[in-house]
Amino acid sequence: MKIDLNCDLGESFGAYTIGSDTEVIKNITSANVACGFHAGDPLVMAKTVATCKALNVAVGAHPGHPDLVGFGRRVLDVSPDEAKASVMYQVGALNAFCVANGIKMQHVKPHGALYNQAGKDYALAKAICEGVKAVDDSLILLGLAGSAMLTAAKDLGLQFRSEVFADRGYEDDGSLVKRGKPGAMITDEAEAIARVIRMVKEGVVKTVTGKDIEIHADSVCVHGDGAKALAFVASLKAEFIKNGIVLASMK
Amino acid sequence: MKIDLNCDLGESFGAYTIGSDTEVIKNITSANVACGFHAGDPLVMAKTVATCKALNVAVGAHPGHPDLVGFGRRVLDVSPDEAKASVMYQVGALNAFCVANGIKMQHVKPHGALYNQAGKDYALAKAICEGVKAVDDSLILLGLAGSAMLTAAKDLGLQFRSEVFADRGYEDDGSLVKRGKPGAMITDEAEAIARVIRMVKEGVVKTVTGKDIEIHADSVCVHGDGAKALAFVASLKAEFIKNGIVLASMK
Amino acid sequence: MKIDLNCDLGESFGAYTIGSDTEVIKNITSANVACGFHAGDPLVMAKTVATCKALNVAVGAHPGHPDLVGFGRRVLDVSPDEAKASVMYQVGALNAFCVANGIKMQHVKPHGALYNQAGKDYALAKAICEGVKAVDDSLILLGLAGSAMLTAAKDLGLQFRSEVFADRGYEDDGSLVKRGKPGAMITDEAEAIARVIRMVKEGVVKTVTGKDIEIHADSVCVHGDGAKALAFVASLKAEFIKNGIVLASMK
Amino acid sequence: MKIDLNCDLGESFGAYTIGSDTEVIKNITSANVACGFHAGDPLVMAKTVATCKALNVAVGAHPGHPDLVGFGRRVLDVSPDEAKASVMYQVGALNAFCVANGIKMQHVKPHGALYNQAGKDYALAKAICEGVKAVDDSLILLGLAGSAMLTAAKDLGLQFRSEVFADRGYEDDGSLVKRGKPGAMITDEAEAIARVIRMVKEGVVKTVTGKDIEIHADSVCVHGDGAKALAFVASLKAEFIKNGIVLASMK
Repeated sequence: MKIDLNCDLGESFGAYTIGSDTEVIKNITSANVACGFHAGDPLVMAKTVATCKALNVAVGAHPGHPDLVGFGRRVLDVSPDEAKASVMYQVGALNAFCVANGIKMQHVKPHGALYNQAGKDYALAKAICEGVKAVDDSLILLGLAGSAMLTAAKDLGLQFRSEVFADRGYEDDGSLVKRGKPGAMITDEAEAIARVIRMVKEGVVKTVTGKDIEIHADSVCVHGDGAKALAFVASLKAEFIKNGIVLASMK
Repeated sequence: MKIDLNCDLGESFGAYTIGSDTEVIKNITSANVACGFHAGDPLVMAKTVATCKALNVAVGAHPGHPDLVGFGRRVLDVSPDEAKASVMYQVGALNAFCVANGIKMQHVKPHGALYNQAGKDYALAKAICEGVKAVDDSLILLGLAGSAMLTAAKDLGLQFRSEVFADRGYEDDGSLVKRGKPGAMITDEAEAIARVIRMVKEGVVKTVTGKDIEIHADSVCVHGDGAKALAFVASLKAEFIKNGIVLASMK
Repeated sequence: MKIDLNCDLGESFGAYTIGSDTEVIKNITSANVACGFHAGDPLVMAKTVATCKALNVAVGAHPGHPDLVGFGRRVLDVSPDEAKASVMYQVGALNAFCVANGIKMQHVKPHGALYNQAGKDYALAKAICEGVKAVDDSLILLGLAGSAMLTAAKDLGLQFRSEVFADRGYEDDGSLVKRGKPGAMITDEAEAIARVIRMVKEGVVKTVTGKDIEIHADSVCVHGDGAKALAFVASLKAEFIKNGIVLASMK
Repeated sequence: MKIDLNCDLGESFGAYTIGSDTEVIKNITSANVACGFHAGDPLVMAKTVATCKALNVAVGAHPGHPDLVGFGRRVLDVSPDEAKASVMYQVGALNAFCVANGIKMQHVKPHGALYNQAGKDYALAKAICEGVKAVDDSLILLGLAGSAMLTAAKDLGLQFRSEVFADRGYEDDGSLVKRGKPGAMITDEAEAIARVIRMVKEGVVKTVTGKDIEIHADSVCVHGDGAKALAFVASLKAEFIKNGIVLASMK
C-alpha cells in the first residue's frame, strides 16, 4: 500500500516570500509548483524546480487563474478555450525548468478557484485536460477524488490521481464542505490523521452528516506554511510508517 | 544563395489587436512569436502558432521584458539571472503550443529593449543564450549581425543567425543608427531593397558616414503592420527572385 | 425633456489602440473613462480627460475588474471590501487628471462584468456606492435602470442616473436579455432609435416577450467603435432634435 | 530644532505580506505609502492610510515604476511624459483613501529606481514635480538632499524636503555611495546615530573619502523590516530627545 504526499510550492514572487519551501520539499513526494499566473515568477520557478531535483521530489505544474492580487482564489469565469490555452502556457513555462534540470514533469494540478471550478464544471475540466494532453499526454492530472476532473481525464485517456484532504470535511456527494460552513475544517490533529489512514487503507471517509462514503486516495494534500504544518506532516508520515503505508510519488 | 525573412507576430492581447498576422505569415519564412510578457497572450499564441503551422512558416520565440504597457521597448535593468529565467519561461510557454501543433521550435529572437540591451551587454547576451540552451540546445539564436549576442552564442556553442534591417541605417561599427538621429531610417523603398540585395549578395552595407562595412545577412527583418509594409515585402521578395536568392527558413 | 449620451472611452493601452475617441467625444455628453484595471493607462487617461475638457464633455470614471487580458468582461468573484477599495483607487486615479484639467468629475459607471454583477448583487452594488461616496459624495452613479445599483445608491443617498441601451433587448423584469439569447440584440437601426425615443418620451419599452414595461432613461449608452457606430449616434441625435429632446450631460 | 522620520509602508500585496506596518507607524512621523505599481494594492492602501490616521502619522504617496516583480527597484527608462502621468495616477489613487479618511496628503516621495533616476535626471525630476503639482500644488516633494529633485522642485515652486539616510555612506558630491561599493553601508549603530545627529544639528556629514560636506536634513529615512530596524528607530528617537531635537512631520 502506497501514498503520495503533495504540497503547493514556489508561491513566492519577486521581493515577496511565502512558505518555507526547502523544509517542505524534504517532507513530501510531489510538489505542485506555481507557474507565474496566481503566484511564482521565473526566478522562483527555477529555484523551486532545482530544489525538487536535489531532494528527489517529483515536480508538477500548478496552473492558476491570471489573478496575482487574488492569489488565484477568486472565481474567474474563463471560457474553456481560455482555460486550455492558459494551462498549456503555464505547463510549458514550468516544463522549461524541468528540462533544464534533466527531470520529467510528473503531473498537473490546477490551483485554487480553477481547481474548484473544474471540479464541478465538466466543460472546464475537459478543456484543462485537453491542454495538459496537448503538451504531454503522459502527464498525470491530480484532482479532487470523484470530481468532474476525474471524469474528464478518463474521457480523454489522461492518467488521473485522486487527492484527499486531511484537514477538510466531506459532503455526502464527496465534495468538500465549503469553508465557513460547520464541519468544513478538521481541526483535531489526531482525528485528521486517523481519517487519512482510513481513506488510504479502507477507501472510506465519514462525511459531515455522519455517513460513510467511498473515497479513493492516491495522494494527500498537505500545507507547507508554518511550523505547525510541518509538525503535522511529520506526524502523518510516522503514522503511515506504523500502518505499513509506503510514501511514493505518483508514477 | 538563400535568405530568411522574419517578422514579429502574435502581438495582439486580449481585446487588443495589432497587425494583420495571417497576411504577414503568408509572406515570410520565420515568425517571431510574442510570449505574453511584452505582448501576446495564451490564446493569441495558440492561434499564431497554428497559423504558422498551416502556412508552413518556421516558429521562433520572441521573449521580451515584462512590460506590457511599454510593449517591451523600454530599457529595463534586469540582472543576468532574471533574464535567463525569463527567457526560459517564455520559450517554454511558447514551446507548449509548438508541441501541441507537432512542430519543432526553430529559433529565439529577443524583443525590443531586451534585444538592444543584449546586443551591447555581453553578460546579458550570455544569460539569454544560457537560458535558450538550457531549454533546447538545438535552438537557433537570431540576433543583430556583429553584436554581443553573436559572440555569446558562439562562446556557448549555440547556433546563431545574423539579421539585417532593410529600413535602418548602420553606424561604422555595424550597430544601428539610433532612431531619431539623421540616417536612422531608410525611407526610400528602392534604396532599402538595393541595400538588402547588396547585404545578402556581397555581405556589405554602406554606413551612415558613407563607408562600406562587412555585414553578414542570414535573415532580413520585415514589418507586418499596414498595407505599405506588406507591399514592401512583396517588392523585396520579387527582387530576391530576380537575383536568384532563394527564400528559406533558417534551418 | 433632456437626455444624456454616454460612451465608454479611453480604452487604449500602451501600444494598443481601441476606438476613435476624439470622434466619439464630439458626439456625446458624458464619457466613461477606463481607469487602468481592465483598460486604459495613465498616459491614455491624461489624453482622454484633456480631450473631454477641450470638447466640453462631462467626465466619469469607468472602474472595472483587474483583468486586462479579459477586458474586464469576465465575472470575477470579488468581495465587497475588494470592490469598494478597487473603485476608490480607480476613481481617485482618474480624478487626478480631472483636477489637473480643472474639471469636476461628474459620475462613476462600473464596467463590464463588474457592472453586470453589481446590477444583481446588492452587497456588491452597495460596496461600490460606498467607495464612490467615500471619495466624493457629490458624484453620480450611472447604472442599469431598475437594477440593484439603483437601490444601493438610493439607500446610501448617492445620486443615481438610469441608463438604457439602444441596441439591447429587455426581459420582463427590466434586465437585459443575455447576449447569445434570441432578442438580445436590436439590429435594426430604425427600430433601435424608435425604442430609445419611446423610452425617453414615454418611459416605456417593449420587452422580448412583447410586453410593455416601465423604464426610466436618464442616459443612453452608445458605442464608439467603427464608422457604423458613429453614423448611428448621428441618426439618434437627429431624432432627438426632431422630438424636441435636448442633449445634456447628467448634472 | 525638529526632524521628521519617514518610512516606506503599505508594501504588502494580496496574499503577500511585507513589513510590520502597524509597529512601524507608531514610531515615525511620515509614511510613504506604496500605490499599487511596485507594491501595495487597493485593500492594503485602505488599511495603511486608516492606520496612519488612527496613529496621527502624516501620509505621503510613494509612487514607483510599474514593476511589481522587481519591486520598483530596477531602472526602467520611462519618458518624462510617462513619469508625469504615472505619478499623477498613483498620487490620485492614494488620495482617494486620504479623502475617505478625512486627512490631507502631506507629501510625495518617489520609490526605488524612480527615486534614484530622478535624483540625477533633471528632465525626469521635473516631470515628476509637474505631475505632483498638477494634482495638488500644496504637496511637498520628499527627495534626496542636494539632488536634481530639489532643483526641479525649486524651479517649479513646489515645496521640497531633504531626506538623509542613517545607514548609508555619502560621496563627496552628496550622492549616496552605491550599494556594493566599500563604505556604502554604515553598519555600526552608534556611528549611524551619531552621523544623523550631526546632519540634523550641524548640517554636515563625513563622506566616504573622509571629507566633511554640507547636507540639509529635514527628514530621516528609516526602515521598518524586522525587530532590529525597530530597535534602531527607538535608539535614534531617544538620541533625538537627548539632543533636544523634536520629532514632527513635515508641515
